[in-house]
Amino acid sequence: MRERLYLYDTTLRDGQQTQGVQFSTQDKIEIAEALDALGIDYIEGGWPGANPTDSAFFEAAPKLRARMTAFGMTKRAGRSAANDEVLAAVMNAGTGTVCLVGKSHDYHVEAALGISLDENTENIRASIVHIVGQGREALFDAEHFFDGYKANPAYAMEAVRAAFDAGARWIVLCDTNGGTLPDEIARIVGEVIAAGIPGDRLGIHTHNDTENAVAGSLAAVLAGVRQVQGTLNGLGERCGNANLTSLIPTLVLKEPLASRFETGITVDKLEGMTGISRMLDDILNRVPLRQAPYVGASAFAHKAGLHASAIIKDPGTYEHVDPGVVGNERIIPMSNQAGQSNLRRRLAEAGIEVDKGDPALGDILNRIKEREDEGYAYDSAQASFELLALEQLGRAKSHFDVERYRVISERRRNAKGQVVVESEAVVTVQLPDGSKRTGYFKNEHPQDLHDDGPVNALWQALKTDLGPYQERIEDIRLTDFKVRITNGGTEAVTRVIIDFQDARGRRWSTVGVSPNIVDASFEALLDAIRWKLQRNGAA
Amino acid sequence: MRERLYLYDTTLRDGQQTQGVQFSTQDKIEIAEALDALGIDYIEGGWPGANPTDSAFFEAAPKLRARMTAFGMTKRAGRSAANDEVLAAVMNAGTGTVCLVGKSHDYHVEAALGISLDENTENIRASIVHIVGQGREALFDAEHFFDGYKANPAYAMEAVRAAFDAGARWIVLCDTNGGTLPDEIARIVGEVIAAGIPGDRLGIHTHNDTENAVAGSLAAVLAGVRQVQGTLNGLGERCGNANLTSLIPTLVLKEPLASRFETGITVDKLEGMTGISRMLDDILNRVPLRQAPYVGASAFAHKAGLHASAIIKDPGTYEHVDPGVVGNERIIPMSNQAGQSNLRRRLAEAGIEVDKGDPALGDILNRIKEREDEGYAYDSAQASFELLALEQLGRAKSHFDVERYRVISERRRNAKGQVVVESEAVVTVQLPDGSKRTGYFKNEHPQDLHDDGPVNALWQALKTDLGPYQERIEDIRLTDFKVRITNGGTEAVTRVIIDFQDARGRRWSTVGVSPNIVDASFEALLDAIRWKLQRNGAA
Repeated sequence: MRERLYLYDTTLRDGQQTQGVQFSTQDKIEIAEALDALGIDYIEGGWPGANPTDSAFFEAAPKLRARMTAFGMTKRAGRSAANDEVLAAVMNAGTGTVCLVGKSHDYHVEAALGISLDENTENIRASIVHIVGQGREALFDAEHFFDGYKANPAYAMEAVRAAFDAGARWIVLCDTNGGTLPDEIARIVGEVIAAGIPGDRLGIHTHNDTENAVAGSLAAVLAGVRQVQGTLNGLGERCGNANLTSLIPTLVLKEPLASRFETGITVDKLEGMTGISRMLDDILNRVPLRQAPYVGASAFAHKAGLHASAIIKDPGTYEHVDPGVVGNERIIPMSNQAGQSNLRRRLAEAGIEVDKGDPALGDILNRIKEREDEGYAYDSAQASFELLALEQLGRAKSHFDVERYRVISERRRNAKGQVVVESEAVVTVQLPDGSKRTGYFKNEHPQDLHDDGPVNALWQALKTDLGPYQERIEDIRLTDFKVRITNGGTEAVTRVIIDFQDARGRRWSTVGVSPNIVDASFEALLDAIRWKLQRNGAA
Repeated sequence: MRERLYLYDTTLRDGQQTQGVQFSTQDKIEIAEALDALGIDYIEGGWPGANPTDSAFFEAAPKLRARMTAFGMTKRAGRSAANDEVLAAVMNAGTGTVCLVGKSHDYHVEAALGISLDENTENIRASIVHIVGQGREALFDAEHFFDGYKANPAYAMEAVRAAFDAGARWIVLCDTNGGTLPDEIARIVGEVIAAGIPGDRLGIHTHNDTENAVAGSLAAVLAGVRQVQGTLNGLGERCGNANLTSLIPTLVLKEPLASRFETGITVDKLEGMTGISRMLDDILNRVPLRQAPYVGASAFAHKAGLHASAIIKDPGTYEHVDPGVVGNERIIPMSNQAGQSNLRRRLAEAGIEVDKGDPALGDILNRIKEREDEGYAYDSAQASFELLALEQLGRAKSHFDVERYRVISERRRNAKGQVVVESEAVVTVQLPDGSKRTGYFKNEHPQDLHDDGPVNALWQALKTDLGPYQERIEDIRLTDFKVRITNGGTEAVTRVIIDFQDARGRRWSTVGVSPNIVDASFEALLDAIRWKLQRNGAA
């Protein structure tokens, strides 16, 4: 029989303390619904009264299975709990569960609040009694508990015992400053339980200031706490809170945890982990962290040649869990470390079959190495990689040659004396029949925020008139453009990676390298068209 | 008396397994020198023979205090160590220390290598004997050690004991797949030591697949190992290796570790941590992770209102260490009073004195916020920040106006039929006396690897003839150029940051933003000249 472990999400409250993060009411509703569907037990929605968005969220909060929780602080000294308007605003949100933060570190009571220790204890007791008396479930967040316990264990215990005796369902031990190491957390949790607060009434709330928030939470669970607080993607003040996106799969999948504990999240729900993590980044308009455990795009990317070839035989050789279980995927990127079997597999996925032992495989790998030394990168430019392979295999089709291009960018004053910035480009290609086609483009909306630079002008000119191929390339759209200054040989060169999409929804990426940023971009643009023509089977 | 704990950096080898990361030889030299200055004990430079860049690095490797280490694998079955050409390439790098990875998990020996367990043990033994016989210090990386130990402890121990008995200085226990939790690591390390391999001969190598790489390393240290392997910024295969940027400050600053262990890194060297972390991101042209422990821009950012006001009274209230100790800074959001005092301090550092309470301070903060919303970034473009502040203060001097510029890039065939790429630019400025000056530049060495692109052409044209200012700007040299696509308002824009240096050794950086990469670059070039003229006190 597994013990029940409760998960408490504070993305909407502590997560919002992340620098640059501000949720709208609608954002909060979407996130709460996703957390509920995942199987989180408690959702802390915000601090009603402290922040207009938080108050609006509680008014609009969806009906959920999860226990919606309002956050606030213990009553202030010199007034009763019933007469504290800050606490009243929290109660007025009408949630079935209320979490109040209060001091448990003697220094903070005296220096920050400027009240006596006894007054603080009484504020905790009276606040919890008030919540429980109103029929709500009460949590007490013991702020700075670990630092407080190290400085004055007797007072830290007095503070949490006051909340416990007053009827708090959960006493949450907070490592507010994030400086307590997992070993210390485990030791102190053990002492708190030994002093009479049972583990199934204790929660843990850690921060990632030493990169140990996840480990500190796990250490506390193993030491006996039965509630874990954290945030999606580890959002939160400073370095963030304990990352539930990492903790949840570990608790559900990894032994001995999986056999000892039952959470509200079943193995089949875990498939939503990668999706919910990306959804949050979408809402925040953040680039998802590639290296994120379980859910990052690189979390199951096998770049080392030895790893990649073993993975092909048996994924278990270099994966601690199956990527599909958390809704993620395996990636075997091309790079100068990849071996031949990895290469064959990658080519097969692109519809390019090569016999085992074909000497072209070695040629392709050598060519990739050479090009990477020049500054190329094929990890994220699959289309350019395929073209390179087809060339080495003698299977690349020839469609057209570029005779010349010329691109001009100009800043000047127009007739009205306004500063305008314009770009124009001309591209001439020669077709297999010997005829030449010239495309021309000049941007006409210089004030527009759309790309009015030389790369866009070249792109528009290049795809103006490609004769017999025109119909096949017209639906290509440029979706992203990345530039990096890197070293090619001994000199700095510019590497450009461009992402494309067509009307069928296919997406592909190409790379170009040159000391001239315009020329590097042009090379990537050309590859995009060549790839599309090759794929469409144009003659 | 503290025990010595050794730090082993594998940024240049395992860190290069990060998707999208490819170091040049020059990058590797810079990183190795920075690691050496920090006080790292061992620097693993790469796998000579497996990768041309790695071989080139060992040929060019700087003379360092740290022990430069070549990485490779144990000899293959069916040949002697002396006749294994893969091992020979590793030895030929000539490093004093050699680290060989080998199998310690029975399944991998049989399934991946397809040899018997005895053959594998013999490969380990003979390889280490060979290295030691050549007078080198030997490390054995026991791949998949923890998984192997769980599956077949007797064989895992046989493998590491073979290396130990053969004279390896260090036996490194690797959690290759990153799935072992800290508690298990501690237990297994304890059992290895109990089985007769002393802790001061053991190292730990973890991966971050459950977000526990740092915690797993600390658990191993507390259980007895005396070497820790990791990478800067946690680079590495999949989710990365143990992050030395987090581990080092924890080992040096936090108790009980600081009192128990001595590393090669002194407290005063720690001030370089933030700088070395940012340097690596610069080399990789990555956006530094704001939430990174110790070194992230948000690591000491106090957004919550209660925290910010307490921090002003006593920083210890919400900080586990002083940000200055790791070379980082405290951030309190710009909107409040503390924002203005921060700003005054930053301006004073640039020689710009502003009275407390001057309303221009609020104007400057608002203007910075507006510009940051448009895509500007002033963290690393101090010169552009100073110019912005001087404008808001009404202290910016006017030197010249740009009438127009025009830049052309062209690819064509020359008279010999060779493809050449050329750029030319013309810039016209108006001086305060109403006269106009025009500069022109065309690159003449199109085959040269030097920058022959439009930005260099514009720069050369701009500084061809600035009339009375010419003498003051002639010594400006462009030293680096970074491009990033970012969001400005709702559209993607290009942000360019350019670094400059003058003959007096002053270095400064400027920023430009535009949907047109050429125009963004031009803005940064102009700022560079304006800053230099302002600093030189030109009228």
